Amino acid sequence: MSELYAGIDLGGTNIKGVLATADGTIVQDATVPTKSYEGPEGVLRRIGDLVEELSVQASGKPLSVGMGVPGLVDVGSGVTRFLPNLPTHWKDVPAASILRKRLGVPVYIINDVRMATLGELVFGHGRTVSSMVFFALGTGIGGGVVIDGKLRLGMLGAAGELGHQTIVPDGPYCGCGSHGCLETLASGPALTAEGVRLMLSGQAPKLHELAGGNPQKVTSREIAAAARDGDEGAMAAIHRMAKYLGIGIGNLIGAIHPELVVLGGGVAQMGDVLLEPVREEVKRRVKMIPPEYYRIELSQVGDGAGVLGAIALAMRGEKLAAGADADRA
Amino acid sequence: MSELYAGIDLGGTNIKGVLATADGTIVQDATVPTKSYEGPEGVLRRIGDLVEELSVQASGKPLSVGMGVPGLVDVGSGVTRFLPNLPTHWKDVPAASILRKRLGVPVYIINDVRMATLGELVFGHGRTVSSMVFFALGTGIGGGVVIDGKLRLGMLGAAGELGHQTIVPDGPYCGCGSHGCLETLASGPALTAEGVRLMLSGQAPKLHELAGGNPQKVTSREIAAAARDGDEGAMAAIHRMAKYLGIGIGNLIGAIHPELVVLGGGVAQMGDVLLEPVREEVKRRVKMIPPEYYRIELSQVGDGAGVLGAIALAMRGEKLAAGADADRA
Repeated sequence: MSELYAGIDLGGTNIKGVLATADGTIVQDATVPTKSYEGPEGVLRRIGDLVEELSVQASGKPLSVGMGVPGLVDVGSGVTRFLPNLPTHWKDVPAASILRKRLGVPVYIINDVRMATLGELVFGHGRTVSSMVFFALGTGIGGGVVIDGKLRLGMLGAAGELGHQTIVPDGPYCGCGSHGCLETLASGPALTAEGVRLMLSGQAPKLHELAGGNPQKVTSREIAAAARDGDEGAMAAIHRMAKYLGIGIGNLIGAIHPELVVLGGGVAQMGDVLLEPVREEVKRRVKMIPPEYYRIELSQVGDGAGVLGAIALAMRGEKLAAGADADRA
Repeated sequence: MSELYAGIDLGGTNIKGVLATADGTIVQDATVPTKSYEGPEGVLRRIGDLVEELSVQASGKPLSVGMGVPGLVDVGSGVTRFLPNLPTHWKDVPAASILRKRLGVPVYIINDVRMATLGELVFGHGRTVSSMVFFALGTGIGGGVVIDGKLRLGMLGAAGELGHQTIVPDGPYCGCGSHGCLETLASGPALTAEGVRLMLSGQAPKLHELAGGNPQKVTSREIAAAARDGDEGAMAAIHRMAKYLGIGIGNLIGAIHPELVVLGGGVAQMGDVLLEPVREEVKRRVKMIPPEYYRIELSQVGDGAGVLGAIALAMRGEKLAAGADADRA
């Protein structure tokens, strides 16, 4: 039997867990509720339970565990520093060492979007390039930067905070405390809010039809569907988002000239209706590098980026914990 | 006698040349007018003459030549692609090979600001860090990015175009063809223009005194002097520039989390009166990384960054031409 690795994607609502082989073949997977109100101890116990259950089902114990968390973590020690969406923010919780004691194998932890970037790098579009920028579009906007085949982490694992670029200096207030961050203008909630505004002001009739006029039923999925059906209001909302996202992408292309930019996360599942106007805006912004010298694509591993990244992390964690950035090989 | 290397900084107005030893000790230097109207052939002949004259004066021939040019160049072949401020733009001029034939030694060419970044990396503040971002503040804003001790170049040597980040989406028209680039808001001309506006509208009395009310006499130097003397208008102009520059710096800190950000170029010689408000703005923008985890400093090599970078380039050019990014070692 092949050697197994465990991957964990810790979210505010659910914990996804997989056991997989080194080539990314998932042999067992499960999702359990996070129950974050139980605090770090309770949640870490549930993660330990999950890995053990997967091991029993697969009749095989993992060699190591990779885990992504929604926030900042000290990569070397596996101590969480700041998980903004979980109670107590998991300040200074030695999560890797707690899980290691429980499971008896090494446990490596990085930020969840950096982990998804690693998934795209090792198992997706990233396989063919040496430099890549990954944008995870969801409730927030996260990211990851790959240079010379290596995921850039920085001292706090905080490199890649691409959603907190300032795009409009005096723009909307951001959860991070600044104003006009890309996340305030091009995240799922930003798109939804603009779709709702247009729907309620009678400028998005197809969207109104699809959502029954109910703001609660407006998501990026409905807005994309309405736009594909020719709804001008929905298209305007998407073009507005694409403009800001294109600016944010263009800034990164000029700064580090990656071969490839990948759009992942749930909102990227809108597909071409988002991708095309993003590409157009990037062309309008990046004048120093001709468009044939970079590519902008939708994620190849899609929803799987997180857990595949966790497997990649489990296999590379030792190097990372020693202070190196994560490479593909 | 120590081994010598030649460094050339090709500007629109002047050509600076030096001969130096491997440790950056300059043994001979000279500056001659570019006479760009003579076209690439004439200018390259003058560069060849300059290197030969320096060699005669130093009684020693360089082992190789490093040259910086104001624009884009194919790093592998040493063919210039686009030098926007020189006649004919030097499109597809095999400059390295022409000079190599003339001088009989290898010649390596990169963008002038990437070269200055290399100078700061090898001989300045960069000696003590593994990651750094360099901003050259002048008539335009250029830059350079260092990760894992290596200068990031990218396929066209175009990585590091930090002055063409979009900071205000519908901002002023930029020479690059886009709008609202950092360069349109925080370069020398942008600062000067705002200083002139304030002076002419009676809001910068000390600046008015220093410049005799003459817009032609307003530069970053006068604005800095007036601000130090308590001129509120001059201070407002600097704070405006610092706000935009701080945003641009903050975007890079979030994206790649360098240990160090260096401000170089002529406009950075304003000193603390610029540096302090820049640091404040970065703190307001970067919320994910505490300020003790990065430094923002003025260039240590100052004016010398270009030619020192040329020497560093001469010594490393072979690796660069083979496709590697330039490392410090």
